[in-house]
Amino acid sequence: MKLRILLPLLLLTAVGVLRAQERVACWERFELRFEHAAKGNPFDVDLSATFTSGDRTIVVRGFYDGDDTYRIRFMPTAEGTWQYVTRSSAAAMNRRRGTLVATPAAAGNHGPVAVDGHGFRYADGTRYMPFGTTNYALALFRPETQEATLRSLATSGFNKTRLCVLPKDFPTPLEAPTRFPFVLRSRTTDEAGKEHFEWDFDRFDPAFFQNLDRRIEQLQALGIEADLILFHPYDRGMWGFDKMPEAVNRRYLDYLIARVGAYRNVWWSLANEWDLVRNRSVEEWKALTRHVAATDPYGHLCSIHGGTAVYFDYSMPELTHVSIQDEAPVFAASSAATLRQIFPKPVICDEIGYEGNLPLRWARYSPRLMTHYVTNGLMGGIYVTHGECYRDPAEEDFVYWSDGGRLRGGSWQRIAFLRRILEEGPNPPQMADVSRDTQTSTAGDGYYYVYLGQSVQSSWRFNLPASNARYRRPQEGNRYRVEIIDLWEMTVTEVPDIFEATKVLDYRVYDKQHRNVRLPDTPYLLLRIREIGE
Amino acid sequence: MKLRILLPLLLLTAVGVLRAQERVACWERFELRFEHAAKGNPFDVDLSATFTSGDRTIVVRGFYDGDDTYRIRFMPTAEGTWQYVTRSSAAAMNRRRGTLVATPAAAGNHGPVAVDGHGFRYADGTRYMPFGTTNYALALFRPETQEATLRSLATSGFNKTRLCVLPKDFPTPLEAPTRFPFVLRSRTTDEAGKEHFEWDFDRFDPAFFQNLDRRIEQLQALGIEADLILFHPYDRGMWGFDKMPEAVNRRYLDYLIARVGAYRNVWWSLANEWDLVRNRSVEEWKALTRHVAATDPYGHLCSIHGGTAVYFDYSMPELTHVSIQDEAPVFAASSAATLRQIFPKPVICDEIGYEGNLPLRWARYSPRLMTHYVTNGLMGGIYVTHGECYRDPAEEDFVYWSDGGRLRGGSWQRIAFLRRILEEGPNPPQMADVSRDTQTSTAGDGYYYVYLGQSVQSSWRFNLPASNARYRRPQEGNRYRVEIIDLWEMTVTEVPDIFEATKVLDYRVYDKQHRNVRLPDTPYLLLRIREIGE
Repeated sequence: MKLRILLPLLLLTAVGVLRAQERVACWERFELRFEHAAKGNPFDVDLSATFTSGDRTIVVRGFYDGDDTYRIRFMPTAEGTWQYVTRSSAAAMNRRRGTLVATPAAAGNHGPVAVDGHGFRYADGTRYMPFGTTNYALALFRPETQEATLRSLATSGFNKTRLCVLPKDFPTPLEAPTRFPFVLRSRTTDEAGKEHFEWDFDRFDPAFFQNLDRRIEQLQALGIEADLILFHPYDRGMWGFDKMPEAVNRRYLDYLIARVGAYRNVWWSLANEWDLVRNRSVEEWKALTRHVAATDPYGHLCSIHGGTAVYFDYSMPELTHVSIQDEAPVFAASSAATLRQIFPKPVICDEIGYEGNLPLRWARYSPRLMTHYVTNGLMGGIYVTHGECYRDPAEEDFVYWSDGGRLRGGSWQRIAFLRRILEEGPNPPQMADVSRDTQTSTAGDGYYYVYLGQSVQSSWRFNLPASNARYRRPQEGNRYRVEIIDLWEMTVTEVPDIFEATKVLDYRVYDKQHRNVRLPDTPYLLLRIREIGE
Repeated sequence: MKLRILLPLLLLTAVGVLRAQERVACWERFELRFEHAAKGNPFDVDLSATFTSGDRTIVVRGFYDGDDTYRIRFMPTAEGTWQYVTRSSAAAMNRRRGTLVATPAAAGNHGPVAVDGHGFRYADGTRYMPFGTTNYALALFRPETQEATLRSLATSGFNKTRLCVLPKDFPTPLEAPTRFPFVLRSRTTDEAGKEHFEWDFDRFDPAFFQNLDRRIEQLQALGIEADLILFHPYDRGMWGFDKMPEAVNRRYLDYLIARVGAYRNVWWSLANEWDLVRNRSVEEWKALTRHVAATDPYGHLCSIHGGTAVYFDYSMPELTHVSIQDEAPVFAASSAATLRQIFPKPVICDEIGYEGNLPLRWARYSPRLMTHYVTNGLMGGIYVTHGECYRDPAEEDFVYWSDGGRLRGGSWQRIAFLRRILEEGPNPPQMADVSRDTQTSTAGDGYYYVYLGQSVQSSWRFNLPASNARYRRPQEGNRYRVEIIDLWEMTVTEVPDIFEATKVLDYRVYDKQHRNVRLPDTPYLLLRIREIGE
């Protein structure tokens, strides 16, 4: 209170060290660096800065990065001149003032992703449809493994991945985490041979987080959103990061947000399988969620992910989208569509089981089934995340979903193919006639998909529903081209006929000549039907 | 404020007219009747009573019932002695005091239905599974029609029905409502021949509500819950009850709750197809919902029903259960189960389309399809409401769903049969292994259903999932009997074999002899599998 009252005076009289005016592109990272030898615990030094541009004010926290170095990171959210002033409990870092100019974003920099109805858009308005995968240990294992994972992602076609911040214990690890978020106080082995770790929860290990920073930057360079899993139950009593005191949980979140909040491609996933974390109640998860939302000055996307078919209270306004583990919704596009109808936010099935060859039932989908499920979800108007769980039975090698390494399955290419197809559409798909027509999706005026799924049929009678979500309905005389897209073979074959709509007959239109589309008697066909001009 | 301070004194000195001590069974209706000639509008007289028994206090409003008669209705919620005292703006009805003794409920009176997890129980703890139908005009048309509908319900097996309080306009009515909730001020016909009604919204027509009272009582005598639809969009500009001023909406709700809140079989359905009522926002619906919950002293079940696949914000605590119109969830038991997973309350698909022969697509399900959908919902752990839309093409006759009259379809008997089957189970069904096994439901320890749906197969290999919801899992050596229940033929056939479980093999148990159950090659078979003792 005293500070707040004194501040205007102080600002007028302060001899701020004015830095040269700096330039940084919109949604890139601006960083202030200070050298300061703290007395006591350097992590206890308060440091923040207020950035102001016109009506916009953003307060960001700084953080201690080791070696007497403090940093304040800031992401300008609009072009123009930003003034800043620091605050710190250390006089040397207090009331430092400066100016930066946020220049237009370069090509390929669209800003952070935000919610737009049941879908997403980057801050610059560009549409974003998540086609994600899963790499829990992306920033946790040996540098070579981390780099291999990033190389695999570079050519995969994925534009989002889920990764754990905190170390994950694996039942049959090829590798174990080598760095940890906190400074180790002691490591002992009991009579039973079990290791016990004691951490100094007052001191982070900057090297651990520096590595995470670098991985997020690399993902950003690849155009991949980093869906950061903040807590998870995969500690299995190994290190105790799943049962830290509540104050440590918050201190960890604050430190993480101070470090990586200024990265535009960051999303917060409060947890993977929150319900499997022992002794943390729904109310505690809600409190942590509110803490993240209140601490993050940018409003990054935020959700929480549970065990199979465990749904959190996604009506919480802090949860920007629904992130779930469940396969039932992708058994059929019509089931996926029900989730879209229930939740007034985007829905991502961030885990539906994985393509793979492990004995576990959630880790042994065929490439075709994985592709089919992803397609069902997309056709129903939600999003579905990929994962891959192959292990060479001859040797204990990497499982991509958790360890990283290289992609070796069959669905990832098809998902990339499907992404290209759907990004050609004017809007993301959704059911054209929800809860009535289980096969026809729409992407806008005169733009449809009919997903035939696992059925094999020799022909398809041209027909469309009279309803078309909120788009223009088909009219008698509208003319359409049809393409047969084979999702498995990744081919697009145009049908030579032009189809002409009848008037609406019992809720549908047909071709005036009653024509069929001949099909190749194979499953996983997606018909794309586009109206053509006069 | 003044009143509250004075009250203790007043009570001590008041010469209350002490009534003789009366007796009424728990959850029955106790009624105080007053004669009073009001000056001015008799509906403007404030009247209420406070009933107290031990720690319990219930404040109920009285109401004017015409002919200088006022009534206060009260439902004792516990056995024992209840003291009451009235309050009124009319001195003659003010500070009347008395005592009543609530005696044990008679057989068949289980009290009001309340929520228990994803299911329901009566107040006395008896399980209640809703098997409902739909009779919009049950209390609106000619007395003969109303009585015919009640006769049909008496033998139907249904234990809930949805009925509209406010008159409903029908496109091709055989009958039109003859009584209205408000006093008619004027009725004029414009040049176009359209009738215009002007109502005195300050004065209710007691006769309209007396008829509703009687119908609710008759339903109660039949063991049928009355799911009262408080608002709907089916006025179609006819009388204007869908666009009354907000104060009139609340006055109407208050009057209705004062009249029928003491009936134990009343549920509140804020609306049918709320989203189709013009010019009423979600926030206004929420406010009306909160008003009902705050006004009803008994906490009767309360929900709101939207158009096809339109989901309200059912996280509102005032909404005790989810009441929806949607068919996609009953396309498969696994889809129904997803709704159960999402909502931490009971889910009722109160409209999935209807059995019938109308040209409208929601009113022409076959009896088999209607039965199938109801079964899918129940197997997935939710509830599904029936409706019937037959019209004799030769004449414009009654449509049961709206007008009432007699049942003539084929699904109602099967639903009654299914009700008997499921009421034999220890618990309501739910998926045994949610999102993994789409066919097996569980009703408890060693108690399963396998619904084979529309598939036709000559045999079923005995097998059960290792998971069993929250119940005991199958163990090697458990022995089971299987019955083949033909839902369409309404037969139960016991299979002579006893099946003995293997240990768990890849998430399932099988019969040690690898035996099959021979099936009759017909669809709509429900296998009931029950563990037998040593």
